[in-house]
Amino acid sequence: MAAGKTASGFRDFFGPQASAREELVSKITKAYRAYGYEPLYTPAVEKLDSLLGSGGQENEKLIFKILKRGDKFSKAVDSSSRSEDDFADLGLRFDMTVPLCRVFSQYQNEIKLPWKVFHIGPVWRAERPQQGRYREFFQCDIDIVGSSSEAAEVDILQTVFSAIDALGFKDLYLEFNHRALIDAIANHYGLSDRISEFAILLDKQDKLDRDTFSAEMLKLAGQESAPKLLELFETPNLDEFFRFDEEAVRALKAITSHLRASGFKESQLRFSPSLARGMGYYTGAVFEIRSPHFDFALGGGGRYDNLIGRFSKKSVPAVGISLGFERLCLALEGELSAEDQLGIFVPVLDESLRPKLYQLVAELKTSLPEHRFFIYPDQAKLKKQFQFADNGSFKWCLVAGEDEFAKGQFGLKNLKQRSEQVFSSKEMVEALKS
Amino acid sequence: MAAGKTASGFRDFFGPQASAREELVSKITKAYRAYGYEPLYTPAVEKLDSLLGSGGQENEKLIFKILKRGDKFSKAVDSSSRSEDDFADLGLRFDMTVPLCRVFSQYQNEIKLPWKVFHIGPVWRAERPQQGRYREFFQCDIDIVGSSSEAAEVDILQTVFSAIDALGFKDLYLEFNHRALIDAIANHYGLSDRISEFAILLDKQDKLDRDTFSAEMLKLAGQESAPKLLELFETPNLDEFFRFDEEAVRALKAITSHLRASGFKESQLRFSPSLARGMGYYTGAVFEIRSPHFDFALGGGGRYDNLIGRFSKKSVPAVGISLGFERLCLALEGELSAEDQLGIFVPVLDESLRPKLYQLVAELKTSLPEHRFFIYPDQAKLKKQFQFADNGSFKWCLVAGEDEFAKGQFGLKNLKQRSEQVFSSKEMVEALKS
Repeated sequence: MAAGKTASGFRDFFGPQASAREELVSKITKAYRAYGYEPLYTPAVEKLDSLLGSGGQENEKLIFKILKRGDKFSKAVDSSSRSEDDFADLGLRFDMTVPLCRVFSQYQNEIKLPWKVFHIGPVWRAERPQQGRYREFFQCDIDIVGSSSEAAEVDILQTVFSAIDALGFKDLYLEFNHRALIDAIANHYGLSDRISEFAILLDKQDKLDRDTFSAEMLKLAGQESAPKLLELFETPNLDEFFRFDEEAVRALKAITSHLRASGFKESQLRFSPSLARGMGYYTGAVFEIRSPHFDFALGGGGRYDNLIGRFSKKSVPAVGISLGFERLCLALEGELSAEDQLGIFVPVLDESLRPKLYQLVAELKTSLPEHRFFIYPDQAKLKKQFQFADNGSFKWCLVAGEDEFAKGQFGLKNLKQRSEQVFSSKEMVEALKS
Repeated sequence: MAAGKTASGFRDFFGPQASAREELVSKITKAYRAYGYEPLYTPAVEKLDSLLGSGGQENEKLIFKILKRGDKFSKAVDSSSRSEDDFADLGLRFDMTVPLCRVFSQYQNEIKLPWKVFHIGPVWRAERPQQGRYREFFQCDIDIVGSSSEAAEVDILQTVFSAIDALGFKDLYLEFNHRALIDAIANHYGLSDRISEFAILLDKQDKLDRDTFSAEMLKLAGQESAPKLLELFETPNLDEFFRFDEEAVRALKAITSHLRASGFKESQLRFSPSLARGMGYYTGAVFEIRSPHFDFALGGGGRYDNLIGRFSKKSVPAVGISLGFERLCLALEGELSAEDQLGIFVPVLDESLRPKLYQLVAELKTSLPEHRFFIYPDQAKLKKQFQFADNGSFKWCLVAGEDEFAKGQFGLKNLKQRSEQVFSSKEMVEALKS
């Protein structure tokens, strides 16, 4: 194993990739905070006992465990144990849900309900390294703990849509369903003992071709029920499902009518009877946020009323949505041109002018908080400085030499178009804003 | 070890503490990006080979190591090894400097110099848990790689001062020195073989009382040199040090004259001949950013020209400053009143009005991007909703019932003063802005 290289399955981010990640975190954070959600930070490291048996199923096999140290390590060696768990009592979190449940149970007397909270950060899984699968990746969760009303679903969906919207994604729509409908349908067609296989198959509907899906349904439900089920899962009309579970349909109608009244278009609200959202812990409405421009969901989630109370052994209602952070990053990176629209290169035409440049930039940036002024931080010939700027990463160049400072008139070059205009600092703010 | 509790030495953050951390990261990020620094993200996990022998000295003993898995684990057990390093080949980073050096060596053909970069995130050390010492804490580094000119020191100091200023810290000043002066003085007084002890003693000057410092200096430097040294280290006049190292004094003068010309006051630039900045890797100017309101440095750093090239075995000039993230958080939390000045509680006076409330908030927040609108996300009696708001964490309450929507006139209550005014949504933006 060569020192001086990234560990296998892990990634470094710098340049435009890193900027995209930073912007994603900061825009989501801003949108979530605007709707009164508070941040939650939990450590990377949890007790192994908290991580194991947490309902994380397959993920529990992928925990990075932390080697015991000193005497504890010696004791493990002396015990001649062949069990990894005797060599470790801490591990890296594999999701954000286990820490949320732990925090809620630990501080429940300090946390006022309903708790609107978001939780963004890396998680770790010891996956076999392969294309597109990483051992450290970000999760980005938002939750309301302590409300069983549909008001919570409405609040969280409004907030998440506003965040994704702020990221510049277009034509967003919501797919929704209710876990109780899936259970009721399974019961109705005699599949009550195979609900999880049934749900897994439903989730695969949009990945399988029609024939394969039909064949699998036939295998699962038998010759009599399969055709009826296939027809049912192509029915986009929620009212048809009333006969399976009145309460579930009522809840979905309550949520969507609120969203409609606050400006969601009919085409943005799509009932999808086969949406099951894999994880077994959902108990009510489930969602996916999609855009026709991507073949993956931008985010998804739902109501899970039996999970939060895991450590505290209480039933605590909760609803949450997780954004697909890594996929959103990839999508955003694709949108980013190499050219930073907000990037302004500031060459130092004469080293004696450097102090004045910092004053000028300090003045400009109060009115242009999103712009990035790269003052060249080395003493170098102009040719070298402009070669640096020539990589196409700056849109603008600010020309401020002795004459310009004397006149109070500065040059603003568009580096691509090679055009230059002359402005006072006040006019420059206006020009860069537009 | 009880499941369901934070692992010993680790911390969770929620409520105002979490908000303070979030604001610190986002304000520093904004300030660093405004001056053209780009973010760097490196994984928590590094190869153990990269972490060990990295010049991290004592910190290398505190690495959390990750237990090998599967066959590799079995092989380690079978080897009957008693060495921790046979059970692990990965570890958690203990600082941000080792990953920076690794990234630079790994991608040096892709990275254009001078590289202005910042790196904020958690690091892990297996400290013995005790008051105020944690096993996971944030580091917040900013660096310029690839410039040996004082322009780099000027650029980084301007940027860091602008960031700390944006955080609201007052009366900031800079303490500065040069490692070459310390070396030259040590040589001059025959301490060339005890430079590191000498530097360590100097760093302790402001923590020791005068007599203890004198006694320790006497022990180190002997009866003849000690009095001269004591006098020297109380001399605040840089010119007196010209005789020890001309080049070092020239460099410090170049840096400070630039800062002075761009608006730093004389009282903000304090030469401190005993400032050594512990870590052995500094090679040039060293700094601390201080405020009279705190007895600790808010940040510190300096030039380190021999470290970045560690993996690539080249000499690469660099200058960096690290902010004391955890201490800044504590200081900021102290400033935060329980009341969120930007927090607006939005009760749902009638559930049928909920959609209109989201529309109203969406409208208000475009002009008030920093405010936090907490729409109550549960269907509850008004009494319960107001009890929730009564914890003093919101400054404002937005009153929008049927009448208010009909008239387009909304109430804005100051929850502390119990006063209420009536505004159109446009007027409300102005009222909340001021």
